[in-house]
Amino acid sequence: MIRAGVMGATGYTGLEVIRLLSRHPQAQVVFATARSQAGLRLPDVHPGAPDMALSDAADVRLADADVIFLCLPHGATQTAARSALDAGCVVIDLSADHRLHDPATYARWYGSAHAHPDLLGEAVYGLTEMRREAIREARLIGNPGCYPTSILLGLAPLLQSGLLSGATVIADSKSGASGAGRTPSVPLLFTEVNENARPYNVGHVHRHVAEIEQELSALADGPPPTGIVFSPHLLPVNRGIISTLYVPLSDGGADASVRSLYTERYAREPFVHVLPEGQTASLAHAVRTNRDVISLHPVPERGMLIVVSVIDNLLKGAAGQAVQNMNVRFGLDETAGLP
Amino acid sequence: MIRAGVMGATGYTGLEVIRLLSRHPQAQVVFATARSQAGLRLPDVHPGAPDMALSDAADVRLADADVIFLCLPHGATQTAARSALDAGCVVIDLSADHRLHDPATYARWYGSAHAHPDLLGEAVYGLTEMRREAIREARLIGNPGCYPTSILLGLAPLLQSGLLSGATVIADSKSGASGAGRTPSVPLLFTEVNENARPYNVGHVHRHVAEIEQELSALADGPPPTGIVFSPHLLPVNRGIISTLYVPLSDGGADASVRSLYTERYAREPFVHVLPEGQTASLAHAVRTNRDVISLHPVPERGMLIVVSVIDNLLKGAAGQAVQNMNVRFGLDETAGLP
Amino acid sequence: MIRAGVMGATGYTGLEVIRLLSRHPQAQVVFATARSQAGLRLPDVHPGAPDMALSDAADVRLADADVIFLCLPHGATQTAARSALDAGCVVIDLSADHRLHDPATYARWYGSAHAHPDLLGEAVYGLTEMRREAIREARLIGNPGCYPTSILLGLAPLLQSGLLSGATVIADSKSGASGAGRTPSVPLLFTEVNENARPYNVGHVHRHVAEIEQELSALADGPPPTGIVFSPHLLPVNRGIISTLYVPLSDGGADASVRSLYTERYAREPFVHVLPEGQTASLAHAVRTNRDVISLHPVPERGMLIVVSVIDNLLKGAAGQAVQNMNVRFGLDETAGLP
Amino acid sequence: MIRAGVMGATGYTGLEVIRLLSRHPQAQVVFATARSQAGLRLPDVHPGAPDMALSDAADVRLADADVIFLCLPHGATQTAARSALDAGCVVIDLSADHRLHDPATYARWYGSAHAHPDLLGEAVYGLTEMRREAIREARLIGNPGCYPTSILLGLAPLLQSGLLSGATVIADSKSGASGAGRTPSVPLLFTEVNENARPYNVGHVHRHVAEIEQELSALADGPPPTGIVFSPHLLPVNRGIISTLYVPLSDGGADASVRSLYTERYAREPFVHVLPEGQTASLAHAVRTNRDVISLHPVPERGMLIVVSVIDNLLKGAAGQAVQNMNVRFGLDETAGLP
Repeated sequence: MIRAGVMGATGYTGLEVIRLLSRHPQAQVVFATARSQAGLRLPDVHPGAPDMALSDAADVRLADADVIFLCLPHGATQTAARSALDAGCVVIDLSADHRLHDPATYARWYGSAHAHPDLLGEAVYGLTEMRREAIREARLIGNPGCYPTSILLGLAPLLQSGLLSGATVIADSKSGASGAGRTPSVPLLFTEVNENARPYNVGHVHRHVAEIEQELSALADGPPPTGIVFSPHLLPVNRGIISTLYVPLSDGGADASVRSLYTERYAREPFVHVLPEGQTASLAHAVRTNRDVISLHPVPERGMLIVVSVIDNLLKGAAGQAVQNMNVRFGLDETAGLP
Repeated sequence: MIRAGVMGATGYTGLEVIRLLSRHPQAQVVFATARSQAGLRLPDVHPGAPDMALSDAADVRLADADVIFLCLPHGATQTAARSALDAGCVVIDLSADHRLHDPATYARWYGSAHAHPDLLGEAVYGLTEMRREAIREARLIGNPGCYPTSILLGLAPLLQSGLLSGATVIADSKSGASGAGRTPSVPLLFTEVNENARPYNVGHVHRHVAEIEQELSALADGPPPTGIVFSPHLLPVNRGIISTLYVPLSDGGADASVRSLYTERYAREPFVHVLPEGQTASLAHAVRTNRDVISLHPVPERGMLIVVSVIDNLLKGAAGQAVQNMNVRFGLDETAGLP
Repeated sequence: MIRAGVMGATGYTGLEVIRLLSRHPQAQVVFATARSQAGLRLPDVHPGAPDMALSDAADVRLADADVIFLCLPHGATQTAARSALDAGCVVIDLSADHRLHDPATYARWYGSAHAHPDLLGEAVYGLTEMRREAIREARLIGNPGCYPTSILLGLAPLLQSGLLSGATVIADSKSGASGAGRTPSVPLLFTEVNENARPYNVGHVHRHVAEIEQELSALADGPPPTGIVFSPHLLPVNRGIISTLYVPLSDGGADASVRSLYTERYAREPFVHVLPEGQTASLAHAVRTNRDVISLHPVPERGMLIVVSVIDNLLKGAAGQAVQNMNVRFGLDETAGLP
Repeated sequence: MIRAGVMGATGYTGLEVIRLLSRHPQAQVVFATARSQAGLRLPDVHPGAPDMALSDAADVRLADADVIFLCLPHGATQTAARSALDAGCVVIDLSADHRLHDPATYARWYGSAHAHPDLLGEAVYGLTEMRREAIREARLIGNPGCYPTSILLGLAPLLQSGLLSGATVIADSKSGASGAGRTPSVPLLFTEVNENARPYNVGHVHRHVAEIEQELSALADGPPPTGIVFSPHLLPVNRGIISTLYVPLSDGGADASVRSLYTERYAREPFVHVLPEGQTASLAHAVRTNRDVISLHPVPERGMLIVVSVIDNLLKGAAGQAVQNMNVRFGLDETAGLP
């Protein structure tokens, strides 16, 4: 039985990790921490959640856990990761703090230097399907961002075939509101989000651009793409991300070999599903599952392939992939405990 | 041209007053105040709102206005009302501060003494259809709460015919989220309200009980009803209130004379509409209008009449009724500027 | 391994039965039928559903199944139930066709005579918590309606203590749109339901009144209640029912013994949860679980107890309770396969 | 007083035309037709709609109207337009039947030959801001599609400056469900649309591509763009379209002159609003108004300008623009009757 600690248990991501682990056949939560709600029980904060005490982070013994899931805001996570590693735990960090490998890039995008830059070099970027071997040995896994997961899995077969050299890819992404977290603010009020839809941080400014471009280069076979134009939009739904990807290809991806790249690459992946020709991925295909569902739409008239890639932002985009990584790391069945 | 000042212009209620006055043929906004956003313009706070400067309340000359709409939190309103009256303005208070006439009742339900108890005696409870004559002369109008408006208009024909003597009425009310205001908090986040519905303050504890029971007595012809059991529920919609009212009547209201009480009482009311037999009021009947829409459902088998009464909480339940009261007070066409 | 057949697999209820059985450790679906979509696979109809062939009902061998779940419209169900019983299967009917015991009552409420009135006498009303012993022996289980489940579980402790003799109970219920099924019609279009809420069939006319009043009498200890006033409302959410129940009690239920009736009655029930004093049940407490969550709100000032009872209409209100009944009938752990 | 006839009054578009005309100071509805609901009144079909008889199209005298608004399905519209013109009416066609000028293009995209191909040559494409002079003289106005309106207004300043020669523009558009009409079908049920978002007809296959590319060529100064890649998505909101447009520009549009093109082109347009730098257009900016709201987002790092263009699909995208065109055609104030 793997003993798991969850730090930051009352945000949407932490709650989802706990829900998954509660039903996991080979793991159990040994502690769950929360800053302001320490002393309460989890269902006091989230009606219907698994019953569990919420502790102050200062009061738990890290060494009681084999693996620590960090669901804290970026920044706060750095010290927590260091301590957990020192206590001998495997660390799966769901914040953005250990996704970028270059300290200068981290500082530029996140506005301050990383407290433990050596860990940036060590951390494995936990996009499970692309990094399985490294994850098996990792002490520290930087769990990917939700948008990057949908975008990178949607592009990987093209990247790994060298088809995106020098290309600029456009990612028009739409996300449910749970992706914005649980800290109250006027723009996240029901009345502001409902019956609305809004782009934000469009172009090349959202922090996820950094990890997307890092991985576009890392995964590319040969010269990498030029980079990405990325426009996230907030939708009035609770869960799910849909990334509509526009990829310049000389024949628009109409050649059957392009579809084969996807079906072959993902044939044995339990959590990536390529829809047959004629079907289009929607949020409903992926929400409340750990799957990335992909559909392909060649536009030969305009020299463009459209890839639609859909995930649940809290599962494959966060907690689900984190548990998948735990399964890989500890040699369990990769699908254990995942819907 | 009536000159209107709006204090507390950036909440949902204040914004709605301004929207209505901007299209009003015989009124204009001469100032709009907002505490923390003074210096900005209204569209900076609400995309698409009428363009208008936001001033600090300390910087406006109250005497520039013929009428002041107070859209402040209860409590803060008391001093503002006093000052505006001293400046010679008519005051229409959309908060709860001048709805109750008895200072002891006010103190009991709102938890602190009223700063100007003499004004409680003077203020007119501005349920327009029931208080038109008094409103024509009023200096200070306590604009009714949203739930009470839907409940009292739904019961008035029975009350005024003496049919509710000694009865306990049950009001099961459902409201959109704009009724909860624009102050950020976790329970009002999109992700918490969406796909949810929740009762709150059920039974006899919501503050609106006080004004409902005050008016049930005031409007009753003969011995008043015993009182009300009131259960508000929060719905995942932006606007609207639906009150389902359960009224014990010996024949369940099946006698045609009961329907006549409603159709006759409201025959000449521009903003109350009684649906014909066989139709049921829904939010869609009233949202974005200033109307109260009523349907009647006799249950003779069980000695109960069900009255469904629906309004838009921001219009007939707040800003619309406030403008309707201004129209009455200043001798304008009662429907001027109202949808 | 229990072999289950599901007839009417593509409606929301049938789909949910299949989802549950797909994850059930001791049951498997051996066939799934659908009228117009026979020949397709289930995910062709519902993106993301478990993969499974859809057969024509005429092409399946009923005897291949130990248990048949009937998810057909009422009426169509009667012949299907007869055939399945003749083939030796246990039948769990999720339609309304085998809930009422009296053929005359059935004919009055459903508008035509029952084709197999003898089965009405045999069928067990499958409100699991109230009929466990009978279910263990049953050939034919009439799975309760969604509204009745929430209302009856909310009232049972009072009924079984004789506290409702002669009382008229008011049930103001609110349901998500999946309860209305998947047959297209204008009133169920997104644009009509969204930002709306509407009462329908209010008073004493909804067909669920018949089974509610049958069971109020059956479960009462001593003289039964007079009956019910029942107002269903359609809400803009996908799933969930919240029933706000108004029960006349001399002291309003303020006496601690009333709360004890609930906590003791349900102490050992895995799927009924009574919230502690001070908490209020909301849809979020029950949606995506098989639980009925109850909160109690005494109103001593008005001689009324308010009971809020919440379920997921597709789980405890339909498919979940059906699987729970299968578990009981076949001697499995009652919670097997249920969230 | 302009006398208007509305044919097809009970769809969402026809209803919206009637709502606008009911409040129009210089127009009145003289008849409203509906196929299956003839004989009813409009509020019987749409709660809260303006009161008005619904006639059978065969029973109205076209010549009683100065202008006919055709809100019929494409196809059915062709004969109706011919008859209305023969009766001497001005025709504003809100269907797709008179937007394309080339009969062969019409036949290719709509699957059958146009019944009156001569009218295709005569009709004016009613994108008001671009065709004001022609509209003043037109007998027949082909009112633009909702998506094309948002896309063409978002690109026009670049097109008219020759900056899009040879470019392929990507339009990622998101629309509320009222754009799909009021004919019942499973994919438009509340339960299917809510908590979902789905792309459809992506790439170069949606029929609006034809009119978009026709107008891209017509409006371009110099060599036209290559064309468009267009991906519509269905969102769970009632109203509104947001088009996120990706335009390749050598400097990414960072040069101040690009912003000037927009602000100057639209400076005197009452219904096009360019947001200041730093703001991003959202549905909330445009819904329930007749405005197209545009924000500009240069991405110099990637040689791309992002233009966000937002409208209300039922107003500027249909009924609002139709009334705007009526105003222009009959020499009224262009903003009369429009919110």
